[in-house]
Amino acid sequence: MDAIEKNLLAQVADLHEIPEGAYNIRANGKLQSRNTTANIDIVSKEDKPGIDIIIKPGTVNESVHIPVVLMESGLSDLVYNDFYIGEDCDVTIVAGCGIHNCGVDTSKHDGVHEFHIGRNSKVKYIERHYGEGDGRGENIMNPETIVHLDEGSYMEMETTQIKGIDSTSRITRGDLAAGATLEIREKIMTHGKQFAKTDFEVDLNGEGCSANVISRSVARDESRQEFYSTINGNCACAGHSECDAIIMDKAIVSASPKLTAANIDASLIHEAAIGKIAGDQLIKLMTLGLTEAEAEEQIINGFLK
Amino acid sequence: MDAIEKNLLAQVADLHEIPEGAYNIRANGKLQSRNTTANIDIVSKEDKPGIDIIIKPGTVNESVHIPVVLMESGLSDLVYNDFYIGEDCDVTIVAGCGIHNCGVDTSKHDGVHEFHIGRNSKVKYIERHYGEGDGRGENIMNPETIVHLDEGSYMEMETTQIKGIDSTSRITRGDLAAGATLEIREKIMTHGKQFAKTDFEVDLNGEGCSANVISRSVARDESRQEFYSTINGNCACAGHSECDAIIMDKAIVSASPKLTAANIDASLIHEAAIGKIAGDQLIKLMTLGLTEAEAEEQIINGFLK
Repeated sequence: MDAIEKNLLAQVADLHEIPEGAYNIRANGKLQSRNTTANIDIVSKEDKPGIDIIIKPGTVNESVHIPVVLMESGLSDLVYNDFYIGEDCDVTIVAGCGIHNCGVDTSKHDGVHEFHIGRNSKVKYIERHYGEGDGRGENIMNPETIVHLDEGSYMEMETTQIKGIDSTSRITRGDLAAGATLEIREKIMTHGKQFAKTDFEVDLNGEGCSANVISRSVARDESRQEFYSTINGNCACAGHSECDAIIMDKAIVSASPKLTAANIDASLIHEAAIGKIAGDQLIKLMTLGLTEAEAEEQIINGFLK
Repeated sequence: MDAIEKNLLAQVADLHEIPEGAYNIRANGKLQSRNTTANIDIVSKEDKPGIDIIIKPGTVNESVHIPVVLMESGLSDLVYNDFYIGEDCDVTIVAGCGIHNCGVDTSKHDGVHEFHIGRNSKVKYIERHYGEGDGRGENIMNPETIVHLDEGSYMEMETTQIKGIDSTSRITRGDLAAGATLEIREKIMTHGKQFAKTDFEVDLNGEGCSANVISRSVARDESRQEFYSTINGNCACAGHSECDAIIMDKAIVSASPKLTAANIDASLIHEAAIGKIAGDQLIKLMTLGLTEAEAEEQIINGFLK
């Protein structure tokens, strides 16, 4: 493992050495290393690229890391990963993709992740996307995440794309059974001429289930962002969607949430706000001795934290 | 004018007698009566059904009433009304359509209203839609309103559709020059198997202009409502959209606002909430002696006031 790969793994999976517990590291389109545990099995798919992650019922306080890194310019990688999480689990899953592209060709990683979360299980899912490299090749990532939440289960999903991805189309779908909870937190920052599109759709199907989708984004330079979020309340349920965006320079941001209540006991709310950094916040930090650029940086870091 | 027509005019234009000032009453697809004033002219179009309303610059404290009533079952009426409001005016325009349908055929009124509002003018526009009749014929209304706001002008638009319209598709478009303000307040209630769709799109084009779109709706029985609202911020401007809906019985409501900020000085916000009447509000009114139905009625009236 060279310095470039080590840095990518640190960026996307917070990994500074080989992780404890189960892991599967995919580098340049191929399996690099894998570890399984007594409770967590990882099996390569035979019909298409990707893996099945199978977590035994009752598994608690365990984690799985499945980072993907691309260091060869011009590589196009597509994987299908399926997660089968048994009942009564409490696990953390860390995915993410890092691209180091010093060439002139486009590097691309598309991942389709499907989660089957068993009754009363609790899953924390962290996904980070990161690109770097001084070449002129573009970095493209199109993640698709599908979540099926069984009765009483809970999923917290945290996705971050802060740097280096030229184009992304992020699709997230969820369906919730009775008493299930889905918490989604998305953070996006785009630079240059980057384009990012995110599209959430959540079906609240079981009595007493709830979803909360929170997106925070910063669009700089001439970048463009589109945010779509659809919450369908089909039963007694609660849904909330929130999109806050800071625009800078010549960026363009659009937000299109949609709520549909098809049941009298569905309670749905959304909010969105788009605007620039408040002038008085900037001035306050500048009177404390920061330059305008430093003040902006500090405000953005706080906003995306 | 018979009792039925008098009641329709009271419902849609708050008219209990012939109005003061300019008016144009259209009944069963034909001009019934008209009055013009020194400052407000009304001219029938020659190429298509409808009228031109021409208001001289500097006209203040005057009003125009242009109600439409349909009392014959099965009538289909389409009009194009254009409003030319000069500079520095301050006027009130009351439109609206009432249908009394005792037959088995569909009665339909489609109106396309286009406003050209001159610099620094102030317009209050009130539009009410109302249907009645014990027949089985359906009542359909599809109003389209297009508003061009010149520099520094102001428009307040109040639309109400509370009763008796089986199907409606309401389209509103606006474009605003520098310093212009558009305030839209919509109230809708649907019953039975009624369907209502409202679609706003506002382009904030001039420095310092602002738009505020507020929709309040109640969906009862098996009725369906769809709300769309798009605000495009193309300059230093402020946009706000809000949609609050109460669902009852087996009704379905969906809300799809969209914000696009294409300028760093555009500040855009939207909010939406869909839910049923809060249980504790009902209980509070019932402990004061109201039946459940009376309590609901009172809450709905307050919400739509």
